[in-house]
Amino acid sequence: MGVTSDRVEYVCRYGGNGTTTSGVNVSIAAEVTMEIHSVCLPPKESTFQKLKHRLSEIFFPDDPLYRFKDQTWCKKLVLGLQFLFPILQWGSHYDLNLFKSDVVSGLTIASLAIPQGISYAQLANLPPIIGLYSSFVPPLMYSLQGSSRHVAVGPVSIASLVMGTMLSEKVSPVQHPTLYLKLAFTATFFAGLFQASLGFLRLGLVIDFLSKATLVGFMAGAAIIVSLQQLKGLLGIVHFTTKMQLIPVLTSVFHHTKESMKKPKLFWISAAAPLTSVILSTLLVFLIKSKVHGISIIGHLQKGLNPTSTNMLYFNGQYLALAIKTGIVTGILSLTEGIAVGRTFASLKNYQVDGNKEMMAIGLMNMASSCTSCYVTTGSFSRSAVNYNAGAQTAVSNIVLAGTVLVTLLFLMPLFYYTPNVILVAIIITAVIGLIDYKAAYKLWKVDKLDFLACICSFFGVLFISVPLGLGIAVGVSVVKILLHVTRPNTLVLGNIPATQIYQSLNRYKEASRVPSFLILAIESPIYFANSTYLQERLLRWVQEEEERIKANHESTLKCIIIDMTSVTAIDTSGIDMVCELKKMLEKRSLVLVLVNPVGSVMEKMHRSNFLGTNSLFLTVGEAVADISASWKPQP
Amino acid sequence: MGVTSDRVEYVCRYGGNGTTTSGVNVSIAAEVTMEIHSVCLPPKESTFQKLKHRLSEIFFPDDPLYRFKDQTWCKKLVLGLQFLFPILQWGSHYDLNLFKSDVVSGLTIASLAIPQGISYAQLANLPPIIGLYSSFVPPLMYSLQGSSRHVAVGPVSIASLVMGTMLSEKVSPVQHPTLYLKLAFTATFFAGLFQASLGFLRLGLVIDFLSKATLVGFMAGAAIIVSLQQLKGLLGIVHFTTKMQLIPVLTSVFHHTKESMKKPKLFWISAAAPLTSVILSTLLVFLIKSKVHGISIIGHLQKGLNPTSTNMLYFNGQYLALAIKTGIVTGILSLTEGIAVGRTFASLKNYQVDGNKEMMAIGLMNMASSCTSCYVTTGSFSRSAVNYNAGAQTAVSNIVLAGTVLVTLLFLMPLFYYTPNVILVAIIITAVIGLIDYKAAYKLWKVDKLDFLACICSFFGVLFISVPLGLGIAVGVSVVKILLHVTRPNTLVLGNIPATQIYQSLNRYKEASRVPSFLILAIESPIYFANSTYLQERLLRWVQEEEERIKANHESTLKCIIIDMTSVTAIDTSGIDMVCELKKMLEKRSLVLVLVNPVGSVMEKMHRSNFLGTNSLFLTVGEAVADISASWKPQP
Repeated sequence: MGVTSDRVEYVCRYGGNGTTTSGVNVSIAAEVTMEIHSVCLPPKESTFQKLKHRLSEIFFPDDPLYRFKDQTWCKKLVLGLQFLFPILQWGSHYDLNLFKSDVVSGLTIASLAIPQGISYAQLANLPPIIGLYSSFVPPLMYSLQGSSRHVAVGPVSIASLVMGTMLSEKVSPVQHPTLYLKLAFTATFFAGLFQASLGFLRLGLVIDFLSKATLVGFMAGAAIIVSLQQLKGLLGIVHFTTKMQLIPVLTSVFHHTKESMKKPKLFWISAAAPLTSVILSTLLVFLIKSKVHGISIIGHLQKGLNPTSTNMLYFNGQYLALAIKTGIVTGILSLTEGIAVGRTFASLKNYQVDGNKEMMAIGLMNMASSCTSCYVTTGSFSRSAVNYNAGAQTAVSNIVLAGTVLVTLLFLMPLFYYTPNVILVAIIITAVIGLIDYKAAYKLWKVDKLDFLACICSFFGVLFISVPLGLGIAVGVSVVKILLHVTRPNTLVLGNIPATQIYQSLNRYKEASRVPSFLILAIESPIYFANSTYLQERLLRWVQEEEERIKANHESTLKCIIIDMTSVTAIDTSGIDMVCELKKMLEKRSLVLVLVNPVGSVMEKMHRSNFLGTNSLFLTVGEAVADISASWKPQP
Repeated sequence: MGVTSDRVEYVCRYGGNGTTTSGVNVSIAAEVTMEIHSVCLPPKESTFQKLKHRLSEIFFPDDPLYRFKDQTWCKKLVLGLQFLFPILQWGSHYDLNLFKSDVVSGLTIASLAIPQGISYAQLANLPPIIGLYSSFVPPLMYSLQGSSRHVAVGPVSIASLVMGTMLSEKVSPVQHPTLYLKLAFTATFFAGLFQASLGFLRLGLVIDFLSKATLVGFMAGAAIIVSLQQLKGLLGIVHFTTKMQLIPVLTSVFHHTKESMKKPKLFWISAAAPLTSVILSTLLVFLIKSKVHGISIIGHLQKGLNPTSTNMLYFNGQYLALAIKTGIVTGILSLTEGIAVGRTFASLKNYQVDGNKEMMAIGLMNMASSCTSCYVTTGSFSRSAVNYNAGAQTAVSNIVLAGTVLVTLLFLMPLFYYTPNVILVAIIITAVIGLIDYKAAYKLWKVDKLDFLACICSFFGVLFISVPLGLGIAVGVSVVKILLHVTRPNTLVLGNIPATQIYQSLNRYKEASRVPSFLILAIESPIYFANSTYLQERLLRWVQEEEERIKANHESTLKCIIIDMTSVTAIDTSGIDMVCELKKMLEKRSLVLVLVNPVGSVMEKMHRSNFLGTNSLFLTVGEAVADISASWKPQP
C-alpha cells in the first residue's frame, strides 16, 4: 500500500471525527487513505520570462514560426516566401484534375459575381462598372497571398452598404460624383491599411469582439435599411404598382432558390439565378423597349480594364477624417466576414487558416485595389458557399473568376446596356433579406438572453441611430455582459456527496449534504477590483445566513469557512486585499478561513503579497475538511 | 459499505485497465470504490424567475429589505423611516457618554475642517468663505441620513482640485467670478443628482470600476498638478526666495506630523497642526504687518450664515454641458472617496455601510448644499481618520462640527483677516503630497504588473492630458485587463497525482503524471465570443503537441480528450458552437471529447442547445478516466 504512519494518522483522526462531532450522518468513504497534499507554487519565472510568455500567448497563440525552427537559412528563406505567398506552397504540386475543378467553380462564381458586383456597387452609390473592376483585381491579389482555398473574393453587401451610408451622409453621390468616388477609393485604402496593420501587429483578437450575436442583429438591421433605401430609390423611377408586383415575385423566386442553397444538389439553381434573371430581364427590356417607357436601365458601360486611381486618393482636406472613419468601419466589417468565411470552410475541409496572415492578405489586397479603381472587397459568404459546393480546390478558382470578369470587361459590356435597374434592386434585396437570420436570433433567445439583448441592441442601433454607433453599442453590450459576469459573480454553497470526496453545489445536487461546523463556499469568477466589494459582502451574507440557519435548527456551531478557489482564475491587488480583510473579519467572529486549490497565478500573487499564513491552504476540499476536523479533536 | 455490484464492476474494469493499456505505472488508488455520478442540471427556473434572481443579485446583493419581512404595516413604516434617516434608529438610545465623545471629536475635526475648508475652496478657485459654508450645511445633512458613524463631511482636496481644473479651463474665475461661482454650484447640484441617482437606481457597482490601482495613480498625478499650480500661483505674490524657504519648512513640519497620524497617541499633534499654523501665522503677519509689505492675506470675510443660492443655479446656456460634465466627474470621485471612507471605518468597528443608501445620502446632501452656497463635499479621508481616533461614536460629531463652523461664521470671521495665503498653500500642498502613495505603487508593481500599468496610465493621463481623460484611460486599462484575461485565457494540461483522485497541472505539480491514452485539459476562464476562436485553436494545438510527443516517445496512442470545465464559469452561444465544432473536429481524428463538471449555468445552456450527447459528461476527471478506460476493455 505504501501508506506512511503519518497518513494513517490522518485517516484515524478523520474516521473518529465523522461519528463524534456530527449529528447528521456524514458517510464519507472512510476507508480512503487520506494524505494531505501541499499546494505548490508554479515554477519560478522572471518578470521578463513571464512577460515574454504572456505576450506570445496574446500575439502568437498559433506559434506561426514553429516550422522555422531548426532549419537552414536557405530553407528558412523558402519557408518565409511560402509563408507570405501560399501560392508558392501549393502551386508546385498543382495538377490538371485540380484545375478542372477550379475552372468549373470559377465560372460558377463568376456568373454570380458579375451581377452581384454591379448591384453592390449601386448599394455603395458607386457606378456599376466599379463593381466589375472590384471583381477583377482583388481576386487576383488574393489568389497570391490568401491562405484559404475556398474563399471567393469580391464586393460584399454589408461593406458596400456601410460605405454607401457613411459617405453619402456627408457627400452627395449625385451632386459630387467625383469627390464621392475619391472618398470611396480613399476609404478603401484606409480599410486595407487598417486590416493589414491589424494583421501585422497580430491584433487579430480585435475582430473577436464582434460576436455572432452582434452580427446577427447588425445584419438584420442593415438588411432592412438597404431594402427600404432601394425601394425608396425605385419609387422615383418606375410606377409604384409595377414595382410592387415585380419585387415580391422576384423576391419569392430568389428566396426559394436561396433556401435550396443548403441542399448541394439544387445549388446550381441558386448559383445560376442572378445571371439568368439579368439575362432574361435584359432581353425582355430590349424586346419591349419600343412599347414601354420609363424603365430605368443601366445604360452605357465603358469597355476596358481597371484604370489606375492613385491620383484619386485623397490625403488631405476636410473629408479625410470621414474617409478614414469609413475605412475603419468597413475594414473591420469586411475583415470579420472574410475571416469567418475562411475559417468556416477551412474547418469543413480540416485545414488551418491563420487569422493574422489572412488579415494581412485582405489588407494588402484592399490597399492595392484602391489604386486600381476598386472599392472594399473581401471573402463573400454567399459566393464562397457556391464556390465550395461547385468543387473549388484552390485559390485558382479566384483566378478563373478574375479571367471571366476580364473577358466581360473587355468584350461584353454593351450587353448590359438594357439591363433594368429593377433587377439589380431585386438582387440586392434578395441578398440582404437572406442576411436576416431570425432562426439564429431565436436560438440566441432560447440559449442566452443576454446574447439576444446584444443582438437586439445591434439591430435597433443600426436601424434607428447609425451604422457605426449601432455597432459600437452592440460591442459595448457584449463587453458589458462580460464585465457584468465579473462584477456580480456566482457564489455557491457546497456539500459533500456521500461516500465520495466530491463536493458539489447543495442547490444542484440533492444528494449532497452539509458538513457540520463547516461552511464550504465556491466563487465562480476571478476576484478583481470590480467585484471585490461585492464578493466580500456576499460571502459575509452567506456566513450570516448559515449562522441563522444553524441557530434555527440547533445544529453544531459554525467553526470554519472553506473557500474553494478552483474557479477563481485570476486575482488582482484589490482581490488580495479583500481576502485578507475577510480573513480578519472572520477571525473577529472566531471563524477560521481556509482556501482550497488556488490556481497558479493566484497562488503566486498571494505568495508575493505575503498573504499566506500556515494551515490556511489545502489542495482539495476533502483534505481541508479532514485535516481541520482532525485538529479539533483533542490529541490522545 | 453499501457498495452495489455495479460500482464494483467499475472498480474491476478500471483496476484491470490500469495495468494493461499503459506502459507507465499509473498508480491510482485502485482500492477506491468507483461509482460514476451523473452530472445534474440546476433546478428548473422560468425565465422570469431567473431574471428576478439575476437582477436581485445585481442590484440588491445586500438584500436591503430583509428586515421588512413578516412585519406589520406600522412596524414597516417605522423601519422605512429608520432606513431613510438612520438618526431615528440610533437617536433613541443616544446618551450623555456618547455625546461627550462626540463633542471632543467634533471639536477636533472642526479645528481641522476650518483651515482646510478655506484652503480647499481656494483649490477650487472659489472664495474662501465658500469653504466654510461647505463645512456647515453638508455635515448637518449627512448626520440625518448617513449610515456611517465615523465619516467627517466637508470639502475634500481631489473633488476641489478637479472642479477647479475643469471649470477654469473654460471660464476664468478672475475675469468672470459670478459665472464661475454659478457653474460651481450648478456642478455641485449635478454631482448630487448623479450620486443620488446612482444610489436610487442601485448602480453602486459603477464606482467599483475605479480600482485602487487607478486611484493611487490618479491621486499622485492630481497631487503633483495641485502642488505645481499652487506654487505657480504664489510666485506672482510673494518673493520667490521667501516662499521657497517657507514652504519646504512648513511642508516638512506637516509631513512629520502626518506620519505620526498613524500612531493614535500622537494624532493630536497632526489634528491641531493646521489650526495652530493658521493662528500662529495670522498673529505673525498681524505683528509684522507694519514692517513687511507684499504678503498676500485673506482679507475681509463677510460674517453670517450661508446665503441661499437657488438663484445661482444655471440650467441653460452655453456652459450647461461643462457644469454637467464637471458635476459627474467630481460626483463620481467624491462618491468613491466617501464610500471608501465609510466602508473602511465600518469594517474597523464591524458594522455595515450600505453603499447604495450612502450614495443617496451623499447625493441628496450635495443637491441640498448646492442651494445654500456650498460646493461638492463628501466624507474626507484625513478628517474621518482624525474623527475616528478622537473617539467619535455617532454622526453627532458632524453636528458638533457644524455648530463650531456656525460660531465661526457668525462671530470669528474678522480673525481670519490677516491669515496669510501662503499658509493655505502650505495646508493644501501638505494635504495633497500625502496623496502620493509610492508604497502602494511599489506593492502594485510587486504583486500585479498590469495593475501597476493601470496606475501609471492614470498618473500620466491626469498629469499630461486632463483629469477626466486620465481617469477614463485608467478605467479603460482596468477594463482591458479584465477583457484580456477573458480573451486569452490560460489552458493547462492536467495529470494524476499518484494514489489519489486528484488531477492537477503537470507544469505545477511535479508528482503529477500523464494518464496514457488521455489528454486532460483545463480551461481557466468563461468561454465567450471573445475567446472561442482562440480557445479552439489553442486546444487543437495542445492535441497536436501531445500527438507529436507521443510519437517521439513511442507511447500508447491518444484516444480521448478530457476537458475539465470546473473553471469555465460561463458560456455564451459562440462558446457552445465552439465546443460542438471542436467535438466534430476531434471525431474526424478519431478522438473522443469528454467534458467534466460543467457549472450549473453552463450545463443548462448546453442542455438547451441540445449539445449533450450520451457518455460525454462526467462529474470528476477520475470518474471519466475510469469509465472510459473500462469501456475500451473488451467485455468478458
